[in-house]
This record gives sequence, structure tokens and C-alpha cells, in this order.
Amino acid sequence: MRPFLLAAALFAPIAMQAQPLRPQVDAWRKAHEREILDEAFALLAIPNVASNQDDIARNVAFLTQAFAKRGVTLVELRAPSGGSPALFGEIKVPGATRTVVMYAHYDGQPVAGGGWESEPFTPKLSRYANSAPTVDVPLPAPGDTVDPEVRIRARSASDDKGPIVAMLAALDAMKALNQRSTVNVKFFLEGEEEAGSNHLGELLRTHKDKLQSDAWLFFDGPVHVSGTPQIVLGVRGVMGAEVTFYGANRALHSGHYGNWSPNPAVAVATFIASIRDNDGRIKMPGFYNDVPALTAGDRALARALSVTDDSVRSSLGLSRTEANSAPLGERIMQPALNIRGIRGGNVGAGASNAVPTSASVSIDFRLVPDQQPARIRTLLEQHLAALGYTVVRDANAASRSNDRSRLAYVSYDSGYTAVRVPSALPVVQAVKRLMARSYGQEPFTLPILGGSLPLFHFVEQLGATVITVPTVNADNSQHAPNENLRVRNLWDGIGLMVELMSSLGKEWGPRS
Amino acid sequence: MRPFLLAAALFAPIAMQAQPLRPQVDAWRKAHEREILDEAFALLAIPNVASNQDDIARNVAFLTQAFAKRGVTLVELRAPSGGSPALFGEIKVPGATRTVVMYAHYDGQPVAGGGWESEPFTPKLSRYANSAPTVDVPLPAPGDTVDPEVRIRARSASDDKGPIVAMLAALDAMKALNQRSTVNVKFFLEGEEEAGSNHLGELLRTHKDKLQSDAWLFFDGPVHVSGTPQIVLGVRGVMGAEVTFYGANRALHSGHYGNWSPNPAVAVATFIASIRDNDGRIKMPGFYNDVPALTAGDRALARALSVTDDSVRSSLGLSRTEANSAPLGERIMQPALNIRGIRGGNVGAGASNAVPTSASVSIDFRLVPDQQPARIRTLLEQHLAALGYTVVRDANAASRSNDRSRLAYVSYDSGYTAVRVPSALPVVQAVKRLMARSYGQEPFTLPILGGSLPLFHFVEQLGATVITVPTVNADNSQHAPNENLRVRNLWDGIGLMVELMSSLGKEWGPRS
Repeated sequence: MRPFLLAAALFAPIAMQAQPLRPQVDAWRKAHEREILDEAFALLAIPNVASNQDDIARNVAFLTQAFAKRGVTLVELRAPSGGSPALFGEIKVPGATRTVVMYAHYDGQPVAGGGWESEPFTPKLSRYANSAPTVDVPLPAPGDTVDPEVRIRARSASDDKGPIVAMLAALDAMKALNQRSTVNVKFFLEGEEEAGSNHLGELLRTHKDKLQSDAWLFFDGPVHVSGTPQIVLGVRGVMGAEVTFYGANRALHSGHYGNWSPNPAVAVATFIASIRDNDGRIKMPGFYNDVPALTAGDRALARALSVTDDSVRSSLGLSRTEANSAPLGERIMQPALNIRGIRGGNVGAGASNAVPTSASVSIDFRLVPDQQPARIRTLLEQHLAALGYTVVRDANAASRSNDRSRLAYVSYDSGYTAVRVPSALPVVQAVKRLMARSYGQEPFTLPILGGSLPLFHFVEQLGATVITVPTVNADNSQHAPNENLRVRNLWDGIGLMVELMSSLGKEWGPRS
Repeated sequence: MRPFLLAAALFAPIAMQAQPLRPQVDAWRKAHEREILDEAFALLAIPNVASNQDDIARNVAFLTQAFAKRGVTLVELRAPSGGSPALFGEIKVPGATRTVVMYAHYDGQPVAGGGWESEPFTPKLSRYANSAPTVDVPLPAPGDTVDPEVRIRARSASDDKGPIVAMLAALDAMKALNQRSTVNVKFFLEGEEEAGSNHLGELLRTHKDKLQSDAWLFFDGPVHVSGTPQIVLGVRGVMGAEVTFYGANRALHSGHYGNWSPNPAVAVATFIASIRDNDGRIKMPGFYNDVPALTAGDRALARALSVTDDSVRSSLGLSRTEANSAPLGERIMQPALNIRGIRGGNVGAGASNAVPTSASVSIDFRLVPDQQPARIRTLLEQHLAALGYTVVRDANAASRSNDRSRLAYVSYDSGYTAVRVPSALPVVQAVKRLMARSYGQEPFTLPILGGSLPLFHFVEQLGATVITVPTVNADNSQHAPNENLRVRNLWDGIGLMVELMSSLGKEWGPRS
């Protein structure tokens, strides 16, 4: 039967092209923009930093009620050792043979450090220029529409509550349009993704039976910076680390002691300069040993993805980027060492002529497949030892030490490995066709996302096939002040989710 | 006559030894400790950061009233271009041929950055252990005494309001003990020393006639760390600089852009590592060209001053110090580059996976005689240019730039040169003898102080001979949280000032 099937597949794009559902979804949505935005605002008004479990509980209560309204009963899935619950619900479709899990996370990044134009948890509609809010815009009247270029401004607007709002609206639209899902749908809303997913592996293992599926569709991360939709077949791994160096146990006058007592700000700078250069090259000995070279195919794909590099640089006020302005697409296929922050003493008006007592650097490593966080930790600590430091894991070690300037206090965020799935999988091809149908344009294929998602756990615990389908705008300032979601991207997400639920079973074909 | 004079000088320490006044001063002081401490607390309760001119005016009003109570009329000396006023007053002594100016400054260091056990401008008496306050102690009852090991804890307690309190008490003691000054005394209380003395040169030039003298006695800085009194014959110069580097004009997700968009925290670290090593060596090309090598005499003096290095290290939680634990005394005779602070992005709980938009380093250089701040600025900017940066002096340049990562925004505190006076001057020898008489022990001679005072202006504008006579404890945490003045050092200061005013004219001999 193979020759016949192949022929059918070849003709399918022309002969079997289904009509896109998007026009109907858009028509419904235009009549309901205010309700969708009201629900988005209500969800975004609930602070969601996972370190505050009272806030997490308020999100859980809201989401449970919102999904119940659509006939989906959410239950809390918890890891025995603690952490935020994940929320799980399902739609069983009689006759469907494929099951997909739709993933998003309801927790968000911390908001410390200032820089917000307004409260991060007081959502607003705002126009943006150069990634900064310019003027606020009122919500549309019920039944009316809003300029889709306007942004929803709030922490987690794009990362990652926006996609949850889209899921809810997509369920409403399907009901209104009398569309039935062609796959069994499970929802999985994670509650501590931005806190490092510390309990996720255990949680998945504990609830393995509920979470069986043929594929996971991850709604997280942004579309391509050009606005072109993209399907993402992998993610870099990540590992956070913080290293603190010490000087004397009290701040000393820099005139009397400044070139005698060790200066921890110099120590931290020297350390940073020893692990990374201004071109992004990681200098820790051995770091690249288990990093595969990019293939010619990878490089070609990277170039295709990097057509907008010049305009992105320009919008960022940059004339050049690291590694001699190498393509962004190529850079994110390689591992990275990012300095998230440095801190020691004071600068500006607060600076005083003193030697700081300690100085810290916060780092995130981005890892490619085959790199293990444990090995990065070992390399980091070996490097510190080679520089003459005694690595300590106790935050109070310095207060008891009589050799403070030789200590390096190291702490880690929970890290995880990278994941990539093959682009030839039928489900990947099916999702790409539905994306093209919903958006009216072919998506880019990104072999690996620069950012990190805890996909490793899904592979390890469930053997899952994980495909990421980003919907939010690239200039969303996620993880940063004035995070926002462009309204058009919310509408796109609703349209795509309806298309996927309604058509994926047919497009993919039945389980053999 | 020379042989006779020489013989007289040789016998002087035995044959002409005057009786110290210290026992009488101590007896008077023991009956007045509460009054002295009350006045100290009242003065220290007035915030005195020179950037707040309302606070400065409150200090001026307090001091004017306090000196008036002792019969000294203070007037405000101002620079035409602005700044805090200096306070000036004088005691003319019939028959006196020598005039000395007693210097202190009434402004203080900023208190930003936290770390204080209590409000910096709410003075307290506290016991200290390991440079941290342990338990508060009540003020003594009127007529009663306080343990002289107790500390007065407040911003400026030691730097530099303590010496002003000692001046006031010394005037009271002289009146009570019926002592007359043997020199004309002028008081000069500076009001923006900790803000860089930006208007001082102009102020001195403007009021040059009032400020003529045979010598200035500076009451600022600490005694030797061993507790031994010291006379200081010079100060290092200083120049503050801040350099800011830039990344993209908005914080970017480190996963999506972290090894593509330039990271300013790496830029600042690489810059720091290029200008100074962990041993204090300054690596800017040409920096040491105009720095004279230490003489054998300098090194011998340094070793004598460094007998306490091991115990100081131990008290600071350090086993080693910079440059292979070279003597502190030797280090401060050399120029220094201190990192006061580094700042970019966030660390700790506030860290997020983003690339910072900018990162800054605050630096203070300490200079030795012959080094010019202007040349240091040139070297710094040449070095930045050699690293590929465009130096800008406009804080807003980055917001308009399309090549942000190549900008280095540089700003400077007003800097000044170092000063040294010869130890053979008769007034130096006379002051040393009176110090020995008041303290009952020989003072150390420090050729140059590690810290900086704006002595250059006094030399340049007035041709002054400047001698520094520190009185406060070395572990006073000046410029840092929990600044304090050990009560015994306040009593020592009162005793020394009485001895100097009462005896310096006789000891020095008349103006020829």
C-alpha cells in the first residue's frame, strides 16, 4: 500500500486542502474581544511568582473556575515533595485515536529590580514604541474591537498566561462554531516553570498514567522576530549559578586599605573575564568538549532564520552583536554563558570610598543536547579551584572563615538538559500544515529554541514527543520590565488552537 | 651660635621638658563627660551629606552657636560659584607670633546602601566587638564617667565631627584651667570634603587674606591601627571615576539573545580585569611612568608601621592581603585603584534570565606626589579607546546611539593631587614633641596617608604647610555602615588640642 499512500501524500496539499477555520474564529472573536480581554486582565491581575504560594493558590482557584465554565474539570497534580501544583484536565473525544497535551505555565518571573512603567500586576492596554509603553488605551466596549497592534502590559502577559487565555477562548469559539476536537485533548498548566521546575520530574513520574499522550504541544516562547510563525523542535537546556567572592568582613576605607585588603569586586570581574569573553566564547577549560559542531544544514537553517538580524540590531540600538555579528539563529544553536547580574559595593550617588565586603555574579548557562548540568557545575568548580579558590556551598561559610578572600560561595538553580525532536515525525509535519493553514503563511522551523523549557522531564519521565508552537510576539519583554502581549498575537493563538484541536486528528491520521 | 643651639636641642628633651597638661585636662573632662557627649550627640543628629544644603545649613547654625558660646565668632566663607560654606573663626593672642589653623570638616559620607544597625543620624553609645555594635550603653549621668572603650555610633562620629566636638571641649577646658593659647588660632571647618571639595580651591583663593598662617593642623583620619598616635606629613591624591557600558536598549531574554546581544556586565568585568589585577597592580598602560620607586627609607618606615598587619588581617577574617601580603605601610605609599562598586542586572532572588541593558563600575584612584588627575583621566580614556570604545561624557548619549555596545560613558569626581611636607620642619618636630607629651608615647611618623584630603588646594592657593594630626580610632568604619568614634579617642583629642594651643608657641619658638 505504500506507493498509493505516497501518491496521496504528494497530492494532498492540493487535492485534500481543507478550508481554514480562521475566518470563522476571527468573526466570533471580533464580537467577543471585550470578554476575552476582561478574562485576560482578571488572570493577569493575580501575582504569580512561584515563591508565593498564596498567590499560586489564587491562580489555581481562578483557572479551575475558568476551565470548569468550559466543561473542563481541572485537578491539581502535585509532587509528593512539594512545589506549586500543576493543573490537569482533559476532553475525551469518542472515536479519537490520538491524544495531545496542551502545555502552558501559569507562574511568572520575579518582578524585582524596578523599571516598570506601572504595577506589573495591574494589566493595562498600551501602545508601544521601541518596546516602551507610550500611551494607555481603554478596553473596547462590549461587542467592539481594539486595534490589534495594542499590547496587553503585565507580568506574564506573554510568558505564559497569554496562551492560557487563548486556550479558554479557543474552547468558547469551538463551542460557538460547533466544532468538535478530532483528538483527545489534555491540558497541563505548570506552576513553577519560572522558578526552575524543581518538582516537575517527580510530579510527572507520580502522575504518569494521567499524562500519556501521542504528543505534547507547548505554548510558550515567542514567534520569530520577523513576525513569521515558527515551530520549535527543541530547546536549549539551562543552568543558573551564582558565585560570591569576599573581601574583609567589614567595609574598609579605600584610601587606608584599598590596595592592601582584597577587593571582591575585582575578584568577581577577574573571574567573569576568565570564563567568558565579549564575543560570547566560554573560556572555562573543557566546556566545548561535548558540544557538537554545527552541521551545514544547521547553518543554512540559521541563516534563513536570521534575515531580520540587521533590523533587530537596529531596533535595539546596536550596530554589531557578539562573535562578529554572527547570525542569531546560529548563536542559539550553541551553548551560552549569560551574566544576569553583577553586584558589589555601590555605584553612582551611593558610591563611597570603601572596599566592598563581597561581590556576586549571577549566571545562566544555556546548554545544547548532550551537555549535562552536572558536568557544567563540575567544570565551574574545577575552574574556581584552578584560580585558587576554595568552593563552598554554605552561604555562611565566609562569616566563619579566616581566609575569606580565598572563598567562592557557589549556589545553583536547578538546571536541565536540552531536547530536540526530529523534524521528519508525522506529527511535526501535520502541525506545520495546520500552522500554515491558520496563519496563511508557512512557518519557520527552528531546530532548537534559544530559551529553555523543562522539556527534559517530559522526555525522561514520559517518553513524550514535545513540539513547541509559540504564539506571542518576539518583542514582548518577557523576563523584563513592561512585559507585554500584542493583541494580534493573542488572536493568532486562539485561531491556531481551534485549528489544531479541530483538525489535527484528520491531518495526522489515525494511530496505526 | 649653631653649636650652642645644637647642644640645647640635644638636651632639650631632658632639661627643658615641660609638664604635660593632660592630667589637668582629664580631671576637668571626667567631671564634664555628659555635657561633651550631649553636644556630640546633638551635632551628630544633624544629617550632613553635602548634597543636601538644607541639612548643611542646620549644621552651620549649630556650629555657629556652639563656637559663639566659647567666644569664637564663626563666619561663613563661600566660593562665588557655590557649594557648602566653610566656617571660619579666630582667636587672636596678644604677643603670639605664630598662627595655626585648626582644620576639620563638618560634612559626611553618604549613607546609601544600608548595613547600619540603627539610623546613621541617631547617635548611640554602643559597645563594639569585631567592628560591629553589640550592646547599647546609656549616656553617663551628669558628673559621671563612661567606659572609654565604648563607641559613639553615628555617621561622621569619627569622620569628621568628632574632632570638632574635641575643639569645642578643648576651648572649655582651657577656660576652666585658665590656660592661654600661645599661638593665634584660626578655625576652618570645611563643608564639602566628602563630596570632593569641588569649590575649595576657589573658596581659599577668595578668602586668602583671612587664611594666612604659619601652619595648618588637620584633624582628620585615624591614629595608627595599633592605637599608637601618628603624625601624618602627606596624603595621597584621589580621583573618582565611573564607567558605564551598554547592551541593547531593553532587557532581552537571555535564552533568546544571551549569546548574540552584547552583555554589558561582561564588558565591565573585562574592563576591570584589564585595568587592575587581584594583587592591586594597575594595568593601564603608562600608569606607573610618573610614580617614583619607594626609597629604602620609605620601606623601613613602612615596615615599622606594619607591625600590626597580621593582627589586622586576622580581625578582618583574612589570611592574606594583596601583593603577597606586602606591608600595609608600603602599599599606601604607592598609588591604588579601588573598585568602589559594580552594578548591572540583578543577582540573588531578583536575578532574572535577561541580558542587562547597562553595567557600571565606580572607581577611586589614590595618587602619590607627581601624579596628576588629568593625566589619569587621559590614560583611562586612552585605554578605553584602545579597547575599542568611544568615550562619551554625556549620560544620555546611549539613548541616542545606534552603536550602544561601543560606548563607554565616563564621569569623574573632582580629583586632586597628593601632598608631602618634609619631616625636618621645626613645626613638625614641635608638634611631635607635644604629641609625645600629651599621649605619653612617641608618635609614629607617616610620610603619606593612605586616605585623601584636599591638601593640594591649601598648598596651591595659600602656600600652606599642612600637618595632619589624626585623633580617631583606626577601626572607626569611616565611609561605611556603623561608623563610630571610641570615646577614649575623643578624650585624647581634647587633651592634644589643649596641649597644642597652650604650648605650640613656646615649643616652636617665635617667628624670626
